[in-house]
Amino acid sequence: MILINGLSRGQIPVTDRGLQYGDGVFRTMRAASGRIAWWSDHYAKLSADAKALGLICPPPDLLLAECLKVAQEHDCVVKLILTRGVGPRGYAPSGSADPTRIIQQLPPPANLARYLDDGIKVRWCSIRLGHQPRLAGIKHLNRLENVLARSEWSDPEIAEGLLLDESGRVISGIMSNILVIRGRTLFTPDLSLCGVAGVGRQRLMRAAQQHGMAVRVTHMRPQDVYKADELGLCNSLIGVWRIRMIEETSCGNGGWVDKMRVWLDEDD
Amino acid sequence: MILINGLSRGQIPVTDRGLQYGDGVFRTMRAASGRIAWWSDHYAKLSADAKALGLICPPPDLLLAECLKVAQEHDCVVKLILTRGVGPRGYAPSGSADPTRIIQQLPPPANLARYLDDGIKVRWCSIRLGHQPRLAGIKHLNRLENVLARSEWSDPEIAEGLLLDESGRVISGIMSNILVIRGRTLFTPDLSLCGVAGVGRQRLMRAAQQHGMAVRVTHMRPQDVYKADELGLCNSLIGVWRIRMIEETSCGNGGWVDKMRVWLDEDD
Repeated sequence: MILINGLSRGQIPVTDRGLQYGDGVFRTMRAASGRIAWWSDHYAKLSADAKALGLICPPPDLLLAECLKVAQEHDCVVKLILTRGVGPRGYAPSGSADPTRIIQQLPPPANLARYLDDGIKVRWCSIRLGHQPRLAGIKHLNRLENVLARSEWSDPEIAEGLLLDESGRVISGIMSNILVIRGRTLFTPDLSLCGVAGVGRQRLMRAAQQHGMAVRVTHMRPQDVYKADELGLCNSLIGVWRIRMIEETSCGNGGWVDKMRVWLDEDD
Repeated sequence: MILINGLSRGQIPVTDRGLQYGDGVFRTMRAASGRIAWWSDHYAKLSADAKALGLICPPPDLLLAECLKVAQEHDCVVKLILTRGVGPRGYAPSGSADPTRIIQQLPPPANLARYLDDGIKVRWCSIRLGHQPRLAGIKHLNRLENVLARSEWSDPEIAEGLLLDESGRVISGIMSNILVIRGRTLFTPDLSLCGVAGVGRQRLMRAAQQHGMAVRVTHMRPQDVYKADELGLCNSLIGVWRIRMIEETSCGNGGWVDKMRVWLDEDD
């Protein structure tokens, strides 16, 4: 099921700036038992991302009602795209009308239970993320770097790729944020130059602090990742996965990821 | 008029990766008297851009026939978008089907004759282009930097913005390439880290050489731009505009831009 501006449709006009320029932002959310998980955090992030691009964000009650209508009591993924709407040719956003709201019901991610139980294997991607402070952290529709990164392998045993930036710093997974645990400290990369600052990451940072961990947003290199006691990847759909192996190197298991998975859904 | 995969339609499925990720490339072309100007160069560039993203480019005869059908003997703009097509959720491009061809007829750019006669006024944009060698030069659908740059002003007397990269080098206009003329040499910025390598720029470099100019692709700073004898901006729709003023600084007129405008349409 798909709702476009509240109507049951499956198509958008070619003139929508979401297609023409990737001029929009999005959210992918978990829905279960007629609820959208982490809705308040998702809306806050959508609204902040929209503001950063100069988009008008529709009110939360309208969007939540549409997401719930699309989810229909299913255990599913709800993807919400907000574009700048239809406009004339040209980059100037002034001519554009109201934003377009696109809300889709999608199946849950594949292999979720297995990855949660066993942990996952990851690889380093060769593409480096470019720096763009004006877009960093935002979950916008310009995702070609992620597409190219995900094109680098087809081995189904590798669940995710790790991304470095142009300076060689560790930034994130392709579709997830990275959590580096050492002692009682949770380290996660600074995302002020590139990457997406996910809602799962934000919830975990908050929860880790509540549970007595120190939380540090830092610059990190691959060698810092290898020195961790335990490594996790998080996003709104998977919760937290433990990284079992980076290429042929086994990673530790300090039991933190299992705890964090529980923390993530506290205070929803 | 719009053709999608050869059929007269105005809408694409929400699940098209062009919308979901900006996963595609495009061309904007001039059409007049039942011809697509510079078609061979446009097709060569589209095909190279598609290849860089791992997209299958449809054959030239098919695309040309569709462009001509859309143009319908009008003096107009034909915009051709090629996306990776419809696919399941997720960055992995493997699940996606055939590419989507979207061809639109659009009106010619505004103020074209006046800008050609009088030259134009430009400004420096404050947003800096990020470096991404894997996407540099390609005319892809991830255009948020251009959108943000074009949002920086609304004064209708300013026809274009000039873009620097994250290192402070001059790269291009927002929708055009920059030509810096000094003596009998045409300088244009290196685009191996960011920017779009337009077909107009490529044609002009070729033509300038044929007409006895030296052509140099270089790194340049704003001070190099101010030292020019004459400055131009080119793209497939406008041909070449002379830059009359950069903010409050007047620029020279060596008569080169007028010549280049003629050169551009030689050997079509």
